[in-house]
Amino acid sequence: MKASGFFIHTLKDAPADAEIVSHQLMLRAGMIRRIAGGIYTYMPLALRSVRKIEAIVREEMNRADALELLMPAVQPAELWQESGRWAQYGPELLRLKDRHQRDFVIGPTHEEVITDIARKEIKSYRQMPVTFYQIQTKFRDEIRPRFGVMRGREFIMKDAYSFDQDKAGLERSYQKMYAAYERIFKRLGLVFRAVAADNGSIGGSGSHEFHVIADTGEDSIAYCPTSDYAANVEAADALPLIEQRAAPQETLTKVATPAAEKCESVAALLGVPLERTVKSIVLAIDAPAQAEANPLTAKQNGAAAPHIWLLLLRGDHTLNEVKLGKLPGATGYRLASEAEIIEYFGAAPGYLGPLGMQKPVKVLADRTVAMMSDFIVGANDAGFHLTGVNWGRDLPEPMVADLRNVVEGDPAPDGKGTLAICRGIEVGHVFQLGTRYSEALNATYLDESGKAQPVVMGCYGIGITRILGAAIEQNFDARGILWPEAMAPFEIVICPIGYERSETVRVAAQRLYASLLEMGIDVILDDRGERPGVMFADWELIGVPHRLVISERSLKESKCEYQGRREAQPIFMDSLAAAEIVAAKIRAALED
Amino acid sequence: MKASGFFIHTLKDAPADAEIVSHQLMLRAGMIRRIAGGIYTYMPLALRSVRKIEAIVREEMNRADALELLMPAVQPAELWQESGRWAQYGPELLRLKDRHQRDFVIGPTHEEVITDIARKEIKSYRQMPVTFYQIQTKFRDEIRPRFGVMRGREFIMKDAYSFDQDKAGLERSYQKMYAAYERIFKRLGLVFRAVAADNGSIGGSGSHEFHVIADTGEDSIAYCPTSDYAANVEAADALPLIEQRAAPQETLTKVATPAAEKCESVAALLGVPLERTVKSIVLAIDAPAQAEANPLTAKQNGAAAPHIWLLLLRGDHTLNEVKLGKLPGATGYRLASEAEIIEYFGAAPGYLGPLGMQKPVKVLADRTVAMMSDFIVGANDAGFHLTGVNWGRDLPEPMVADLRNVVEGDPAPDGKGTLAICRGIEVGHVFQLGTRYSEALNATYLDESGKAQPVVMGCYGIGITRILGAAIEQNFDARGILWPEAMAPFEIVICPIGYERSETVRVAAQRLYASLLEMGIDVILDDRGERPGVMFADWELIGVPHRLVISERSLKESKCEYQGRREAQPIFMDSLAAAEIVAAKIRAALED
Repeated sequence: MKASGFFIHTLKDAPADAEIVSHQLMLRAGMIRRIAGGIYTYMPLALRSVRKIEAIVREEMNRADALELLMPAVQPAELWQESGRWAQYGPELLRLKDRHQRDFVIGPTHEEVITDIARKEIKSYRQMPVTFYQIQTKFRDEIRPRFGVMRGREFIMKDAYSFDQDKAGLERSYQKMYAAYERIFKRLGLVFRAVAADNGSIGGSGSHEFHVIADTGEDSIAYCPTSDYAANVEAADALPLIEQRAAPQETLTKVATPAAEKCESVAALLGVPLERTVKSIVLAIDAPAQAEANPLTAKQNGAAAPHIWLLLLRGDHTLNEVKLGKLPGATGYRLASEAEIIEYFGAAPGYLGPLGMQKPVKVLADRTVAMMSDFIVGANDAGFHLTGVNWGRDLPEPMVADLRNVVEGDPAPDGKGTLAICRGIEVGHVFQLGTRYSEALNATYLDESGKAQPVVMGCYGIGITRILGAAIEQNFDARGILWPEAMAPFEIVICPIGYERSETVRVAAQRLYASLLEMGIDVILDDRGERPGVMFADWELIGVPHRLVISERSLKESKCEYQGRREAQPIFMDSLAAAEIVAAKIRAALED
Repeated sequence: MKASGFFIHTLKDAPADAEIVSHQLMLRAGMIRRIAGGIYTYMPLALRSVRKIEAIVREEMNRADALELLMPAVQPAELWQESGRWAQYGPELLRLKDRHQRDFVIGPTHEEVITDIARKEIKSYRQMPVTFYQIQTKFRDEIRPRFGVMRGREFIMKDAYSFDQDKAGLERSYQKMYAAYERIFKRLGLVFRAVAADNGSIGGSGSHEFHVIADTGEDSIAYCPTSDYAANVEAADALPLIEQRAAPQETLTKVATPAAEKCESVAALLGVPLERTVKSIVLAIDAPAQAEANPLTAKQNGAAAPHIWLLLLRGDHTLNEVKLGKLPGATGYRLASEAEIIEYFGAAPGYLGPLGMQKPVKVLADRTVAMMSDFIVGANDAGFHLTGVNWGRDLPEPMVADLRNVVEGDPAPDGKGTLAICRGIEVGHVFQLGTRYSEALNATYLDESGKAQPVVMGCYGIGITRILGAAIEQNFDARGILWPEAMAPFEIVICPIGYERSETVRVAAQRLYASLLEMGIDVILDDRGERPGVMFADWELIGVPHRLVISERSLKESKCEYQGRREAQPIFMDSLAAAEIVAAKIRAALED
């Protein structure tokens, strides 16, 4: 490609509403243009990267035996009513009516459509396993679209759906997709981690997210640098930090702790480490509202007393609400009101603890707290705490659960090291759906004995256009984007100095260009006749990973100047050998 | 690809609502599955063909220097309001509201979005010429979607838009696209014609449609078998069939023609050829309604007498309403009422003519009628016609216009032969838009003298998914589809007989499969272990253009059986040379 025949329109500054660096750089480089909130045109520069990502995804999906098809964007409401999501989904689901006033949605995802296809096409166990995928444009009506392509409303996704006879088959299909995802993100040249994920409300048993590691990521990931272990902090197992409970050393003592409502203040006041304190969190779980015909009875039920839970966490730990939400009986929990706390504990928040309550509550200790001895809790008396508290001696053994977020330095759940925490941007998700949709839509097959069984499904997504933003968040500097070779809009740019003025330069540039093209390198020749400063700034902003500069001066010595976008210094190369050398560099990077 | 890892699900019968052969065959072959009216999933088989078509389109667009981008499906209403099409477009335009109750459309086409991009990005004459294209999913809410992918609601289109400084630039961009379209349809292996088209209501000067020739086509195309000339019958120039008017031979005579209201009956009754008669068509053109503040005046205007036109066509010719609609002053024409006819002609329809009217009317003769002599018209007297009528002698010279549809045998307008008529399916359209959108959206550039000028636009569409249907309408037989090689889902199928039973067959089939794959041939090996009858029926229905059959019997003689899908008889080939031979056949077909 020659720059004169391409469309390059870079900007000095990004619009003020571009909050993050990838959004700013994509606008400045002329990759995307906004049409409406969260809705963009992918200009030729960005589309080149999109198509390269798609090609790699397609190759790896095909290699994993997935079959490409294409489902419609506009989907009939009936399918969403059958699955129940017509009611469950919020306003992110863009609903519309056609000219005959029939309800449709613009698909944010395609579980309903693919399950409808499966129930019509898959009749026998012999047709499985089968995995279908598509690369398709989706729409989610985000309440506040932002961050450019990172949280847009219209976006391109690769979504795949596997169909198996049973859980064991699903596990095999899932592993194939998992392996394909690892190959995809590796080939794209991204630093990424597959992390165990929370299954959310969809249920199902296995789920991993694929995160591009970047400081600006929205998600916290706990990982073990010395093993494969990684999990979203939401889902990471927190092991007890004390292996065995030590024998009590202290006696139970009530101490005055005026104006020390936080563990930090208590520890400071008493001159002990924060790790000796235990914090109390009081929850209320309302009795489930019952569907009663008699409004009088319903009212009485509504007035039933809530269950009160006391959660105990070590003073330096934080509550993990996802883990809490999954505990049996915790559905619909809320923080208890001050009135409820005073009713059950006889004291206001700040001095609460598991000893000497007014009314019985369920005490639930985090795994670490359950192993503590001689610890400090509130005395249920304003201005006082208890020290030297010991399980079994001073109060009954508690019920134990994993309640906290892991922190840097925690033991890794796989026993192979300690955890570190980093931030990531989710670009892929693999998910064992099970029979959630096949049961709702009655997608069954006949097994070997001729019995109808629900098909067992998995779903697997990759945010194609989101990858652009995530890759930039991970790869940029003050001058612009640092594309990995595999998704760069061009692999190399030739910048001739004096292209219009000097025939020597023009001939050498065109020869180099022709050589690189012939070697299958995706090269652009900047034949615009711009000044060197303009050329260099444009291509550094756009992020082309390799640059060759040709000038009369360097040609006199039969040299040209090579500059790697990530490298500080240029290298002078023999101008005739340059094409071979940089082609080899690019191939090596693509194979890495 | 091996059939065991592919998804093949053919049907004996097509659903009753599939009216045309392409729709029936695509359903039976398992290429498409209906999700809602006019909304389909492209199953893996169809998507392979779609991707092959897209690849050819993309290559030829790139070769013609067009730049690929991707615009959104969901577009803000504001842009459509600016262009005026928010009001002009009927219910085919699918409108919707987002969660904030803002109006959007799902784009049926992208003139508005691309013009919005152009007005933001194109500032200078130096940025042009430039042509952008995309391959993208569109939606048109057809009132009665039918014919499968031929008139679906959601469909894939390639749309391109050129931007130039002036008309001369547009003409060059248009010619480049025209040439690219010719290459595309030729490479796809389709019999097609580029035909001059009516410009419709959009205006603009130049327009061609690309039609796939098929008996089931919706459009009639007039073409000259001995030249390049082709035009939609709507737009084809009808030359006078009589080169020079002959001198009058007969005297004007009133003859009784009881119960002969049609030219055919008059000719039969008088024993003359139909070509001697002239038919009369009476139009009324109402005075244009004027926007008056005073309703009384408005009413008076509304009651103003219509203009009455008498159109004269030769008895065997038919009126072309598109041509009529473009005549100056004809806007809003209608057929005159019987009362109006009696008021102006003094006779009821059936015996009308251009002599002896009650009130003056505008007489407009078709080019051929204007050259006739001694012709026959109605006498404006029930039951009577006039014979021996001659222009200039019996009545004034008429105003002349091209009013009729061309017919088979007419002289071609390019003077290079006579016209034939065939039917076609429109799959592409190139169109000189001019400044229709750039003026409405104020998309201007600064010319060399620094003056703002509207950019001059062209638009160019190809119905990617429609091509599937059109190709089948042109290429099928009683057993199924006859894909051209370039868009066949697979180029060749290997059908081994006894694949599971015979190791000899299995080894030979796999070797052949590996050889073809290595030669870059898109081959499928039917390893399902089905009976020959089932295999052959499936692949003939699906329309794979080449087939190799391997059996123990043929292998004994070191042969395999080759069958071309379009050929009546199989050929026996040396089983070791077969791969080379069929690969050469396929390459030759693709290069044709």
